[in-house]
Amino acid sequence: MKLFKTNVSALFAAATLFSSSLIVVQTSFAQTTGKVVAPSSLKTPIANRAISESEVLSAQKGWGDALVAISTTYDTKGIEAARALAEKVIDTAYAYQFGPVLFKPTLTLAPQTFRTTRAGALAYFVGGDPNFPMDKGFALKHWRKVEVKNAAIFISGDTATTIGNVIFTDKDGNIVTVDKTWQYFKDDNGKLRIILHHSSLPYTAK
Amino acid sequence: MKLFKTNVSALFAAATLFSSSLIVVQTSFAQTTGKVVAPSSLKTPIANRAISESEVLSAQKGWGDALVAISTTYDTKGIEAARALAEKVIDTAYAYQFGPVLFKPTLTLAPQTFRTTRAGALAYFVGGDPNFPMDKGFALKHWRKVEVKNAAIFISGDTATTIGNVIFTDKDGNIVTVDKTWQYFKDDNGKLRIILHHSSLPYTAK
Amino acid sequence: MKLFKTNVSALFAAATLFSSSLIVVQTSFAQTTGKVVAPSSLKTPIANRAISESEVLSAQKGWGDALVAISTTYDTKGIEAARALAEKVIDTAYAYQFGPVLFKPTLTLAPQTFRTTRAGALAYFVGGDPNFPMDKGFALKHWRKVEVKNAAIFISGDTATTIGNVIFTDKDGNIVTVDKTWQYFKDDNGKLRIILHHSSLPYTAK
Amino acid sequence: MKLFKTNVSALFAAATLFSSSLIVVQTSFAQTTGKVVAPSSLKTPIANRAISESEVLSAQKGWGDALVAISTTYDTKGIEAARALAEKVIDTAYAYQFGPVLFKPTLTLAPQTFRTTRAGALAYFVGGDPNFPMDKGFALKHWRKVEVKNAAIFISGDTATTIGNVIFTDKDGNIVTVDKTWQYFKDDNGKLRIILHHSSLPYTAK
Repeated sequence: MKLFKTNVSALFAAATLFSSSLIVVQTSFAQTTGKVVAPSSLKTPIANRAISESEVLSAQKGWGDALVAISTTYDTKGIEAARALAEKVIDTAYAYQFGPVLFKPTLTLAPQTFRTTRAGALAYFVGGDPNFPMDKGFALKHWRKVEVKNAAIFISGDTATTIGNVIFTDKDGNIVTVDKTWQYFKDDNGKLRIILHHSSLPYTAK
Repeated sequence: MKLFKTNVSALFAAATLFSSSLIVVQTSFAQTTGKVVAPSSLKTPIANRAISESEVLSAQKGWGDALVAISTTYDTKGIEAARALAEKVIDTAYAYQFGPVLFKPTLTLAPQTFRTTRAGALAYFVGGDPNFPMDKGFALKHWRKVEVKNAAIFISGDTATTIGNVIFTDKDGNIVTVDKTWQYFKDDNGKLRIILHHSSLPYTAK
Repeated sequence: MKLFKTNVSALFAAATLFSSSLIVVQTSFAQTTGKVVAPSSLKTPIANRAISESEVLSAQKGWGDALVAISTTYDTKGIEAARALAEKVIDTAYAYQFGPVLFKPTLTLAPQTFRTTRAGALAYFVGGDPNFPMDKGFALKHWRKVEVKNAAIFISGDTATTIGNVIFTDKDGNIVTVDKTWQYFKDDNGKLRIILHHSSLPYTAK
Repeated sequence: MKLFKTNVSALFAAATLFSSSLIVVQTSFAQTTGKVVAPSSLKTPIANRAISESEVLSAQKGWGDALVAISTTYDTKGIEAARALAEKVIDTAYAYQFGPVLFKPTLTLAPQTFRTTRAGALAYFVGGDPNFPMDKGFALKHWRKVEVKNAAIFISGDTATTIGNVIFTDKDGNIVTVDKTWQYFKDDNGKLRIILHHSSLPYTAK
């Protein structure tokens, strides 16, 4: 439990540091000659908007930790606390504040399949919105563990896309496996945000 | 029938023009002053790797036209002709020649859910590959019409992502609707290629 | 005079709208079928981070207008007003708040040739900084007109680069021509910011 | 001498491998769980179009090595061999085959300041083109050493830009320092190509 709390904190830290942050500014050894020079003179300031694989894996882990955190909060503190946390998670991990998000959650039904607005995402995770009457709250299903198994990753530069399985385990040990695609972009503060999220139950031949 | 033939031809034209093509080089009126000058002196050469919305819509239409073409070829000329066409379509519309593609077709079963290789994509579309014994050939299902209804589009620059419904109609008027995400990147020849394709049947509450 | 004031206002408007703005969210007609449907159902939400040519030309014009505005402010209201305006221009048009900027101004001398920090940019434009003792203030040279003649433009997606001549005319009609490269990126609010600026006097054979 | 020959060979190797190459496909350890699994099942295929800092530094070094190679070839084998090598270097290191390149060489004179075509680049490096009568051949100036000192680097994803000094030393020990900006993009084969090159002599106050 401690562990994911640390991770969720890290997730939120990025948001609260918003105003003072940078595009992942690095310093590095960039002279191409072999001459020995004092270390300080070797550092080249770098503004790097490219996404690395480790940033992608960290964003995936952050999403899973956040889902477990909402579930656990619901079980221990009730729906209001869970909803408040879900709002924070959505504002931190998704890109709704910049425009529409391409979100097809696992269990939505037509004609509300796609949740391009923040309200639609929140309703999916914690339910209770009369505008989305079929939503029961996916994050309220007592999840305790989220495992990501990537099948392939595409890093195009300042966006990155993953596809693979995500395996959810609830408090009673029940397991649900989904096929999931996420696409992230790196925002001006160097943080990955979900701009695309397509989740679906595996096809079962009849 | 004429219509889609033209469209499929256009799709292949991009591939055959490969060697002489450019990064969508435009000429344009780029001087910022209001002075009247001779048109010739106004043209600024532009190399443009950004993807436009109309390029995205055209790529979607090309995919649908190609699927109908494979189905119709199968019905009129048999499996060998259909397979040959499917290979052309895959090589023209997808990005397998550059690396793994993030492809989760509608009807694949674990443990072969994700088709990151060209062989896996071909097997899905036309079947007949002993390495993918559960594949029956999605493109052989007598499709006659493909309609795309986008729910949202994200253009990140030289990649673009769409999410929405795709509605397939076969020769008997049967209709199948899927939830579909495509991500394209613009290659060095200015052509959009599918790097991500996640398709799933709509969720149905039990 | 009226004219550039409008333009400079537009430049600053982008900054003040900061908190509520989006990634250039568009609505558009994105269905690929020819069926007649009600206009409202045709609109697809689009988040577009790609840079268009017109956005590039507008950013170039904004820079020229801002330089003339600083010069005119200096001539009519003095150095303090000019410096305050220059700070606004730098914060609005450049990307220093996100990290280092690749700025080589026209008239800087070694070892202070490159101005990767905001302080270095401000000193170049309005002088008066003891840390940059060779700077006399390029924006204080009574400029009244700035004309951009692009030789070529490269749009890579969410960044764009231009190269060409920029011609400055001062209040006495003196003209200076420079060779200039600008690279912009589109920030999370849909605004172009200068991340690279290399300016140099034309080479003159001896 | 051996050393740069190796480097130049590496530069050309990328071009000759053209047909079989990929978008820098990596395999990596991408599962986010801590479970011990067999190494083979841990590898996620990755298509990575992002540019790393080391790729940038390697491209810079390749350019310097190529310039010294042309100079040395000219001194030992004459102008025809030097021109042939220069053509190879331009086709390998620049992006002219995809469209216009934003190239402002150090010593060009108006009205031929900007060399957006391959012919203009070749004339600059080895001269002898009646269409560019003022070009004497920058690469024929007996260069023996090229040193790059970056002031700052901007990596936007699949393009990267550098600014700084480049110091040229000829066979007699004469030194020329220039201010130089390069922008690269990663092509479909994973190779960096110069799309922007702005070089200028340092400003000298009169």
